[in-house]
Amino acid sequence: MKEVTLGIDIGGTNTKLGFVDEKGKVHGESSIPTFADQSIDIFLERLTSQVDLLKKEIKESMTIVAIGIGAPNANFHNGKIEKAPNLKAWGDDVPLAYFVNKALHLPVYITNDANAAALGELQFGAAKGLDDVIVITLGTGLGSGIIVNGELATGHDGFAGELGHVSVKFDGRICGCGKKGCLETYVSATGIKRTVFKMLCEHNGNSVLSNVAYDDLDAAMISEAANNRDAVALEAFDYTGMILGIKLADTVAHLSPAAFILTGGLANAGHLITEPTKKYMEQNLMPIFKGKVKILTSGIKDANPAILGSGALAWQEYKKNTPPKVEK
Amino acid sequence: MKEVTLGIDIGGTNTKLGFVDEKGKVHGESSIPTFADQSIDIFLERLTSQVDLLKKEIKESMTIVAIGIGAPNANFHNGKIEKAPNLKAWGDDVPLAYFVNKALHLPVYITNDANAAALGELQFGAAKGLDDVIVITLGTGLGSGIIVNGELATGHDGFAGELGHVSVKFDGRICGCGKKGCLETYVSATGIKRTVFKMLCEHNGNSVLSNVAYDDLDAAMISEAANNRDAVALEAFDYTGMILGIKLADTVAHLSPAAFILTGGLANAGHLITEPTKKYMEQNLMPIFKGKVKILTSGIKDANPAILGSGALAWQEYKKNTPPKVEK
Repeated sequence: MKEVTLGIDIGGTNTKLGFVDEKGKVHGESSIPTFADQSIDIFLERLTSQVDLLKKEIKESMTIVAIGIGAPNANFHNGKIEKAPNLKAWGDDVPLAYFVNKALHLPVYITNDANAAALGELQFGAAKGLDDVIVITLGTGLGSGIIVNGELATGHDGFAGELGHVSVKFDGRICGCGKKGCLETYVSATGIKRTVFKMLCEHNGNSVLSNVAYDDLDAAMISEAANNRDAVALEAFDYTGMILGIKLADTVAHLSPAAFILTGGLANAGHLITEPTKKYMEQNLMPIFKGKVKILTSGIKDANPAILGSGALAWQEYKKNTPPKVEK
Repeated sequence: MKEVTLGIDIGGTNTKLGFVDEKGKVHGESSIPTFADQSIDIFLERLTSQVDLLKKEIKESMTIVAIGIGAPNANFHNGKIEKAPNLKAWGDDVPLAYFVNKALHLPVYITNDANAAALGELQFGAAKGLDDVIVITLGTGLGSGIIVNGELATGHDGFAGELGHVSVKFDGRICGCGKKGCLETYVSATGIKRTVFKMLCEHNGNSVLSNVAYDDLDAAMISEAANNRDAVALEAFDYTGMILGIKLADTVAHLSPAAFILTGGLANAGHLITEPTKKYMEQNLMPIFKGKVKILTSGIKDANPAILGSGALAWQEYKKNTPPKVEK
């Protein structure tokens, strides 16, 4: 009987799930719509049905030992989702671990999606064997999962790792969090798009990106333009890497990680983003840190990183025999 | 037979030592000159003699179980002092733990002085019972010791916690580390003195501090002036707290600690420094962190914090039964 964990990644649009074995292979990967405008009860019924379905579909016989969930604003310390903007209909304070435990009768551990991604890299990806490492997810926003002494840093309140909201510039770009000048307004798929529009303004157009509307532009288009040596797109990547590099130098002064691992949509640009990030980080490091810190991209291939990360959380806590933190 | 650790704090000028019992009481506190221009062999002989002397002086019979040392640029991971500017005659790469173990035949653990201070606060001071807390030492420079999940963050190379060298301002004040605009050039006993001279320049004097030369001014004089409502001194504290508060908001986004504990010379100014720091930190926190993070001053009274911190390091590692990390 093979032991697996159930990894669940809850997003505003879709919820992905699958069984994760001890080697990091995902079995029965699937997805259901979250329907975040309906009540949590309906979601739980649909989730339970989907898990039952998956169990039947998989031929190999498996024992699920624990459940890991990655979700926006999920607090490891109490098992709740707190004030998640994309899951408003569920309420401000959702005892998710409690509900899922009641529905599926297994220990449930939850954390936010970037923390889950970090645990996935730590157990199965580019962070394997590292005790001090930071995973940066570059999607719509910038998330991060911080590993210190081999453990996820959760902070006293469960909300550590909000690197997307360190300050780049006083009175800078408007951020969704209510502040101005946060890192994610510059460095994320959305951030680089904003930068392209700044560059188009400065260059008075003069780019293949001049004929794309704000709502239509995405990171993949900017990467493609940069690969075709479009000056505006190249400058946008340099600017994005500069800001990320400067701020990561500050992060090194905090925690001196062996590496940063970039994941998510914008990280698919590869060297276009890693090279300027590395260059400007090095320029801004204090001498004792120079030449020591790697900038890597995700080491997870052939698996959904979000499911794998959630499954990795469950594996970690199951092996430590941690009592689930489940508040009602 | 009472168990104690031997706490040693090595500075460029003096080396302080004493026996630390499990309740955080220091016995036989004393000090010897470091004589950092002489060889390490001479220092080790004098240190050994001093320890023998202390053992004889103390009437209560004690067993020393381990030695903890706080020293500049001391690396926990290998027991070495690496490139310490104030201890140049000892060499660039001093296997201190190895030497002290050979001389005193006890397990030896070393770390830098700010990390030792953090462990002292964690075991015996204002950080007791907290799992996530950051100690900031405001002396000649700004040091820090970061506690995550109840453990000291050392980083992959042993040099985590260099908060004095996060960037406040590109191309800002010249820093001893070789960079410009580092936090400690603004926030430290030296930093506030530099700020007073900037304010004197802007106000064209007009302060009780106008008649003090740069070399003679210290943090205590600035505190006294501020307590007497000198406008320049008050503005200097507000400016210092503003910069510290803004940068600590970034640190909260990393690690979400329950508290920052300010120690060292400038922290003796009490509310003059904690109040503006708290105010500007709060203004710059993202909403989920607001109102949660305390700004405290040291909880260590009636003991030398440097000796206590080094002794606390030894207690921590002795209790965990950590094999000392001793490279030759």
